[in-house]
Amino acid sequence: MRFLHTADWHIGKRLNGFDLLEEQEHAFRQIRQIAQAEKVDAVVLAGDVYDRALANEESVATVDHMIQTLNLTDHLPLLVISGNHDSPVRLGTGAPWFSATQYYLHTQLAQALDEPVVLGDTQFFLLPFWQPFAAREYFQDDSLADVPKGMAAIVQAMQAQFAPDKKHVLVAHFFAAGSSQTDSETTSTVGGLDAVPVDLLTPFDYVALGHLHSHHALNEERIKYSGSPVKFSTSEASDEKGVWIVDTTAATVTWRAITPLHDLQVVTASFADLTQPDFLPVSAQNDFLAIQLTDTQVIPNVMQILRQQYPHILSISRAHGRDRADDTPTWQSQRKLDPLTLATDFYTDMKDDAPTKRQQQWLAQTWQEMEDAQ
Amino acid sequence: MRFLHTADWHIGKRLNGFDLLEEQEHAFRQIRQIAQAEKVDAVVLAGDVYDRALANEESVATVDHMIQTLNLTDHLPLLVISGNHDSPVRLGTGAPWFSATQYYLHTQLAQALDEPVVLGDTQFFLLPFWQPFAAREYFQDDSLADVPKGMAAIVQAMQAQFAPDKKHVLVAHFFAAGSSQTDSETTSTVGGLDAVPVDLLTPFDYVALGHLHSHHALNEERIKYSGSPVKFSTSEASDEKGVWIVDTTAATVTWRAITPLHDLQVVTASFADLTQPDFLPVSAQNDFLAIQLTDTQVIPNVMQILRQQYPHILSISRAHGRDRADDTPTWQSQRKLDPLTLATDFYTDMKDDAPTKRQQQWLAQTWQEMEDAQ
Repeated sequence: MRFLHTADWHIGKRLNGFDLLEEQEHAFRQIRQIAQAEKVDAVVLAGDVYDRALANEESVATVDHMIQTLNLTDHLPLLVISGNHDSPVRLGTGAPWFSATQYYLHTQLAQALDEPVVLGDTQFFLLPFWQPFAAREYFQDDSLADVPKGMAAIVQAMQAQFAPDKKHVLVAHFFAAGSSQTDSETTSTVGGLDAVPVDLLTPFDYVALGHLHSHHALNEERIKYSGSPVKFSTSEASDEKGVWIVDTTAATVTWRAITPLHDLQVVTASFADLTQPDFLPVSAQNDFLAIQLTDTQVIPNVMQILRQQYPHILSISRAHGRDRADDTPTWQSQRKLDPLTLATDFYTDMKDDAPTKRQQQWLAQTWQEMEDAQ
Repeated sequence: MRFLHTADWHIGKRLNGFDLLEEQEHAFRQIRQIAQAEKVDAVVLAGDVYDRALANEESVATVDHMIQTLNLTDHLPLLVISGNHDSPVRLGTGAPWFSATQYYLHTQLAQALDEPVVLGDTQFFLLPFWQPFAAREYFQDDSLADVPKGMAAIVQAMQAQFAPDKKHVLVAHFFAAGSSQTDSETTSTVGGLDAVPVDLLTPFDYVALGHLHSHHALNEERIKYSGSPVKFSTSEASDEKGVWIVDTTAATVTWRAITPLHDLQVVTASFADLTQPDFLPVSAQNDFLAIQLTDTQVIPNVMQILRQQYPHILSISRAHGRDRADDTPTWQSQRKLDPLTLATDFYTDMKDDAPTKRQQQWLAQTWQEMEDAQ
């Protein structure tokens, strides 16, 4: 059995206001090409198909098209689970029909345990994102208080079903301990308490994980995050994106890179350099840029000016801070300022530009409403 | 071919704040029983499966369960189209897989024309709700300016595909001319311009329509609305709900009624009568009631008092108007009143109770915002 391992497509995701659909479709086309070139027997998608439980129509149409292309056009078996960003109900609509064409979509814990999928020499356990209460309910065991205890019971139940003549692969979506974290995933689900200890996962020949967006998040030979196919955060700027090609027969795991349509870069430079026409190659001027200005003086309308040359600027920050007029209050004296002045100062610091009249009105109005509500 | 014709399930619909899911599930169980008792070969659902394009998760889970029960548990072929309330994209997810179990779900105009469905002795044309631009695009004909012109072209294209040895059934969701209208359907799509002339539909052996919620909406032998399985409006209070059993071989069309769990009634009575414990039989006290009070005097807290006895009151109105103090302004003099007084009077007339302090504040605030925006 030779399969492609991907995860965290997050269709519908926006990055600082920019639509990523074109990026995601570009990455999808490469995933499809890699699957064909590598002659895989199946594609594994380890959760977070959508970016949100309630995806918009365009996202639904895009996912429908991608899944149909792989499964109905290319006749590739698909093994898919829901992640913490997916709605199990919405993603799962139609699932009872899908297995007829070897598209296995599991959105409920019970399916992971009751319906292992055998393809070729391999038995797949498709474990969607789950919460401890679901494990307590399934096992009728109130002692499964947290994720590690629940996962221990789940793995034990899976092992009891291991077909002895098959390889065993787990597809799952959670935070495995020992991983480092990138900031495009919400922090609420990666704290220590929710982590799955990696050593629980050793019974499997391979564990195809989703949740963390960097494929370097875990350094284990047979327990891997594929990461997302597209960069979703400046913390992923230096990440290479791609998919794993897993061969359970030859026991090999190979990385295949995906090239972005528009890369995501962190650029540290002066305003003077950035406004040179050839500071970045033309091909990179459309990249998603997190700019760290080395200047320290105030530059009026800096975002507007730079966006003319670099339309996909994600953010502008200051590498060495920003000069302040002598009368700029220290944090000590700021404590005595009124909330509107503080908010205006904060906005100006963050955006490198003063709030507009209308924004100031909103600030004042919101503050008034908060005072009234007390 | 013997099939059950239903339509306008509107799963997710609320009636004056009341959830109708229990009613709809009760009706669904009867539809299932009728299908079994009548030994039908298929079930036709002529659009408006959902009440809104963006249904909530509970509605999605309910529809999934209903469809799976009929098609996967009872092994009944299903013929379903999207109505004007459905999102073609969302409802259509998974459709390419469904036909493997004879669940035919058409959400695009092209499918109605390119993919007629043959079951037994009958050829079905499943025409989802469509708009003239879709007809112009499909036929590449800019002269199809409106619904009648578009429909003429659609019927002609269907006739060209008529299998001569089969009966021909159209399943569609639109306003057919000659129908009367109930007010639970939006008026925007039932105006004269958008009507389909009934005589266009004569080539078919049967036309299974959805859109209007009364099965009396059209009095044609072989062109019928099934109406909704549940009463969705006080204008449907005296309607009997049910489904049609259509036999294309015997050329018969038979009505089968559905009994409501809680009926919807219009009750005209005095406050004194209504507050008698046995004015309505106990079984009817939980019905959805539109109450027309015969009293003319002001009755404080009338809704709160009556809801204690009748928890599902939809509305209270006055059969003979309401007494006014002598200084109540006439409509003539009301023209000179300020908008807040007018709004307060209107609220009091409608609700039979004065607005609360908080509601008065909202009124004043909203009026101020409207003035500011001018």
